[in-house]
Amino acid sequence: MEPGRFNAITDVEGVGVGHSTIIRGEGPLRVGEGPVRAGVTAIVPHQGNPYYEKVVAAVDVYNAYGKSVGLPQVMHMGVLETPILLTDTLNTWVVADALIDYMRERYGVEAMSINPVVGETNGGFLNDSWGRHVRRPQVFEALDRARSPGGRGPVEEGNVGGGTPMSGFGFKGGIGTASRETEYFTLGVLVQLNCGRREDLRIDGVPVGRELSEPRPRGVKEGNSIMIVVATDLSLTSRQLWKVAKRAILGVARVGHYGGVGSGDFTIAFTTGKRSVEEMVEGLGSKYPGGSRRLSLNEGYLSLVYRAAVEATEEAVLNALFMAETMMGRDGNTREAIPLDRVREIMEKYGRI
Amino acid sequence: MEPGRFNAITDVEGVGVGHSTIIRGEGPLRVGEGPVRAGVTAIVPHQGNPYYEKVVAAVDVYNAYGKSVGLPQVMHMGVLETPILLTDTLNTWVVADALIDYMRERYGVEAMSINPVVGETNGGFLNDSWGRHVRRPQVFEALDRARSPGGRGPVEEGNVGGGTPMSGFGFKGGIGTASRETEYFTLGVLVQLNCGRREDLRIDGVPVGRELSEPRPRGVKEGNSIMIVVATDLSLTSRQLWKVAKRAILGVARVGHYGGVGSGDFTIAFTTGKRSVEEMVEGLGSKYPGGSRRLSLNEGYLSLVYRAAVEATEEAVLNALFMAETMMGRDGNTREAIPLDRVREIMEKYGRI
Amino acid sequence: MEPGRFNAITDVEGVGVGHSTIIRGEGPLRVGEGPVRAGVTAIVPHQGNPYYEKVVAAVDVYNAYGKSVGLPQVMHMGVLETPILLTDTLNTWVVADALIDYMRERYGVEAMSINPVVGETNGGFLNDSWGRHVRRPQVFEALDRARSPGGRGPVEEGNVGGGTPMSGFGFKGGIGTASRETEYFTLGVLVQLNCGRREDLRIDGVPVGRELSEPRPRGVKEGNSIMIVVATDLSLTSRQLWKVAKRAILGVARVGHYGGVGSGDFTIAFTTGKRSVEEMVEGLGSKYPGGSRRLSLNEGYLSLVYRAAVEATEEAVLNALFMAETMMGRDGNTREAIPLDRVREIMEKYGRI
Amino acid sequence: MEPGRFNAITDVEGVGVGHSTIIRGEGPLRVGEGPVRAGVTAIVPHQGNPYYEKVVAAVDVYNAYGKSVGLPQVMHMGVLETPILLTDTLNTWVVADALIDYMRERYGVEAMSINPVVGETNGGFLNDSWGRHVRRPQVFEALDRARSPGGRGPVEEGNVGGGTPMSGFGFKGGIGTASRETEYFTLGVLVQLNCGRREDLRIDGVPVGRELSEPRPRGVKEGNSIMIVVATDLSLTSRQLWKVAKRAILGVARVGHYGGVGSGDFTIAFTTGKRSVEEMVEGLGSKYPGGSRRLSLNEGYLSLVYRAAVEATEEAVLNALFMAETMMGRDGNTREAIPLDRVREIMEKYGRI
Repeated sequence: MEPGRFNAITDVEGVGVGHSTIIRGEGPLRVGEGPVRAGVTAIVPHQGNPYYEKVVAAVDVYNAYGKSVGLPQVMHMGVLETPILLTDTLNTWVVADALIDYMRERYGVEAMSINPVVGETNGGFLNDSWGRHVRRPQVFEALDRARSPGGRGPVEEGNVGGGTPMSGFGFKGGIGTASRETEYFTLGVLVQLNCGRREDLRIDGVPVGRELSEPRPRGVKEGNSIMIVVATDLSLTSRQLWKVAKRAILGVARVGHYGGVGSGDFTIAFTTGKRSVEEMVEGLGSKYPGGSRRLSLNEGYLSLVYRAAVEATEEAVLNALFMAETMMGRDGNTREAIPLDRVREIMEKYGRI
Repeated sequence: MEPGRFNAITDVEGVGVGHSTIIRGEGPLRVGEGPVRAGVTAIVPHQGNPYYEKVVAAVDVYNAYGKSVGLPQVMHMGVLETPILLTDTLNTWVVADALIDYMRERYGVEAMSINPVVGETNGGFLNDSWGRHVRRPQVFEALDRARSPGGRGPVEEGNVGGGTPMSGFGFKGGIGTASRETEYFTLGVLVQLNCGRREDLRIDGVPVGRELSEPRPRGVKEGNSIMIVVATDLSLTSRQLWKVAKRAILGVARVGHYGGVGSGDFTIAFTTGKRSVEEMVEGLGSKYPGGSRRLSLNEGYLSLVYRAAVEATEEAVLNALFMAETMMGRDGNTREAIPLDRVREIMEKYGRI
Repeated sequence: MEPGRFNAITDVEGVGVGHSTIIRGEGPLRVGEGPVRAGVTAIVPHQGNPYYEKVVAAVDVYNAYGKSVGLPQVMHMGVLETPILLTDTLNTWVVADALIDYMRERYGVEAMSINPVVGETNGGFLNDSWGRHVRRPQVFEALDRARSPGGRGPVEEGNVGGGTPMSGFGFKGGIGTASRETEYFTLGVLVQLNCGRREDLRIDGVPVGRELSEPRPRGVKEGNSIMIVVATDLSLTSRQLWKVAKRAILGVARVGHYGGVGSGDFTIAFTTGKRSVEEMVEGLGSKYPGGSRRLSLNEGYLSLVYRAAVEATEEAVLNALFMAETMMGRDGNTREAIPLDRVREIMEKYGRI
Repeated sequence: MEPGRFNAITDVEGVGVGHSTIIRGEGPLRVGEGPVRAGVTAIVPHQGNPYYEKVVAAVDVYNAYGKSVGLPQVMHMGVLETPILLTDTLNTWVVADALIDYMRERYGVEAMSINPVVGETNGGFLNDSWGRHVRRPQVFEALDRARSPGGRGPVEEGNVGGGTPMSGFGFKGGIGTASRETEYFTLGVLVQLNCGRREDLRIDGVPVGRELSEPRPRGVKEGNSIMIVVATDLSLTSRQLWKVAKRAILGVARVGHYGGVGSGDFTIAFTTGKRSVEEMVEGLGSKYPGGSRRLSLNEGYLSLVYRAAVEATEEAVLNALFMAETMMGRDGNTREAIPLDRVREIMEKYGRI
């Protein structure tokens, strides 16, 4: 399947992404002071008011060692009514509180019931997480950027926004994104990658992790979470979107993660609803035995959407890994970027290049 | 079934409850200033360190129009690792953030992953909810009280703590509690009542709401949520506790609520694990056809625990209603207490007294 | 709320119900011979071909000590593709197998994947359950009747079809049905009642069970299951129907059941999709603060559907109880009908008549 | 991780496997006559009476286009009380009914409530599925074999038992099994493989399917299901087992399946409970930062069990594929075995051999 123009979640029309990043200080950890390696990433589902123009949404909880905010209501009501923010674990609630400020001050929502959605992974290896440095100014900055024209173009990946201090497969991780486009729909994925053990890393099936297993990274435990956001323009119901969301973890599994005990592996999916299912069913129908009637009854057309979700998630994870750069954080803790030269050599050795 | 000594959740040994309440100002709403009718209620599962001595826990989500924090991890890991706090909707995230401060400063938890649990219902009819007046000092006060000797005695009900601005069945609601004690276990329930329509109110099956339906209360919508906390000392697994938690909503249903669309109806259950299931199974076994072996295999002994949960929840809801007092809040909004004299007359008319 | 013309699930246009009943033999149980007190009840969602015109459906599992067939696929795909059958526990799989025969022979479905839906409760107190006497002829008879014009009229209740050997609250139970009709939708419920303890029975809130508690019925255990089928013509999604289905157990709770450990309490809901939600939202909108826009965004209109589900379920349970007649079954086991005269006296005593 | 002695689910002590296979007739399909390519596979959790010695169990439903019988009760009660049978879709209910006969006649269970567990995938491409040829004799044969000494040894794979007519990744599929053994536990997996598209097939990460994509197989649709049974001797709770069960699909994902719309992807896990978690926690604790206390609190030791489940499932799928032989069935439909020579060449080309 083919990627969209930006190979990013922003290929889904209307979706905007903005990062706010703080990289400040070095040396030993002093809680409240730093060093700070933190940020927040905002995803807006469209350029209107998300509270008044709610979008159909769904959540898959694969492994719930995680503190994400707002998910039960999304699952139950089947809609998302705020942008989605991604940040560092201990910053989750401050960020959620700032998000409702934004809803009131920028979107003019006075309702006394708002369901902010915030995802998190744990950046404590590099960041002064207890300092909770991501606050109102960063949240507003990320959201303003996501709503600006620039927020709808290419998406910066790696050590940015919520991904700033994160790790992946024993290397530096962070934000990654990818998309798939067909005649009938576009689907984009954005991940905040912070999971995986080095020895499990597989790139396009090649056991890169086994080849790169030395030296063993310090401070890497199994698990440690991945947040996945899936966006599409295909007008699915919440139940259907949930099934799409369930596929994302398979894309992560292909890279070698298996959802360790301490991993928060959540997928939030939403649709802008701009493309109709009817059109897709009719288009595919002629190519399918039984045609559109059978496809529609059994939702057979969804398999293509599932495949897009698996592929885009797999690629988003790899993009996070490839775009992140070596970072030193608190107490001199350092997470190295994956050595791209070595990866290239290994891929050659395994007949891929 | 019989109530415990205090007819409160604190009848479960070790459980402590503390409230912090703010009632300040009158007149028109000025966001950030008041009037304030707010607070927070803390429930500690035992008098040790909840992070290091986690308790087995479970969650039932009946209707998830609600913002509660921390529930997915409790469901997935089957444990609770912080006290439970109850507050006003828009205060949820500030309160969660203060709870992790408390975990660090008072319980000495430095871990960079903590799962704070906060429940909420919407007090915006009386309170300056957007002001988010419940902050660190109130959270610390409620928690300190829950951990003091006084926190393990009788529990104040009605317009206190998180229940301060809440409503129930068109009357003033708030905090209510009750318990049931048997030879084998104690089970206690605490609710933050903010749900129900007046015309639906039934007390011990008597249609009190229909008789009291005039004058119609202003500003009461269906739904509006109830948070239920169930504690027991019987050492159940998380799956078993989840089934106990599922019974609580039946107790609320007996009072007339049916979980409106905009209602957040959550039950959080935990066990201190002090009483063994084996003892109960053996004790009951002799009275059951098939005896303890059959009871144990099929979990038949749980039915008694279910009944305790239904009864204690029904009574906790009524206690919240009976103990709350008329309150005037922002913009002169007033919620009247249920008229106890009239209730008595109606109960007599229906042959109950 | 008002019942429909028949006060039955058949008030939902197109829905048909058919029973097939076997009452044969007396005396001691001889497995395979009798006595037989058994049957099957068929509910067809419409008068077309259910496999090719699938209906949107959902399932709520309240307590799953039960053997119902076909539910996971209904939950996942959100559609029902066969009629629903209700029968005795040990007959479940023979009945499911006969149902696919019917799909092939009468509906002409040759597909090698069909998802038959069969619910059950345990009739072993009166019936030779191990004999599995409900077979292809009975299944075909019940289905043929459900599809005949007579199947769309009043529904026989009590000791018929799948309800033949069932009990309720220590008295004779069986099939019961009721409906609610509004300007915007019709909702009907049919139950196969086999649950509840006598002392818990409440009729319209009156503790009838406590008053009738002697003599204690033999062979009545807590639990023992209830199957609930909810039909509506309002075009809801599967997620919305699931929330409607979740309300049914509250109606049962009002009669005093609380889902004992050994109870299989399942609700299957479907919609014929004949009435549009848009019409309802517009109609209600003018009466609601915020109007149709707000109603639609937050699904507020569903609360009325929830209430209909609670009320119709409560009444269907009572109808099953009131219409069933005393029955003697295997080994002389006898289940008495609820004494209607005594119920009337008790209701008078409690100020209801 | 290392496989056990037989590299089979029977490496878990006490677990037995038995197949009954019917391969009869050729030529055009005549419903009820054949050709028959069918069977049933039985897995007994231990050599005692499964009804009286229930085992802790759990279920993961990944994609529920499937007719499996008995799963809701297993999920809710957390126990398995019969052997597990695997067969062809349309044979599911006949097989379930024969299983309760077996429970009564061979295990002496007279209870009127038994929860038979049967899984299925769709063998209709080769088999006269509507004929439902797997009946009581086959069910009894498979179960008797599973309980015989031979049932606890090596397990026959490929075209046997329930796997007889199944396909996988466009080639012949069927039954496959594998195991992993550690100092602390043994975990075994058995699959009935009937899923996957040829072009998606990956073996140890090598895109074998892309290389073998021509000629395109007839009659292969995406989806078409996989049943996975996981057994372990580690004494986990049902909640923990459920999390282990959730990992199995990741092993399938590594081979290239992504759970198509029409796929029934179910995992049933059980534990014989012979090995204690305490022993494992203590053993691992010394190797972990934080030691056994932290491991136990956060269930960190489970990650090793997860890995075993992923690896054993991946290998079981491949074993099914490698052991199956080309089969011609009804109407001359033929499913070719995967060409092992070609696979070897491709693996060499990609640097694996």
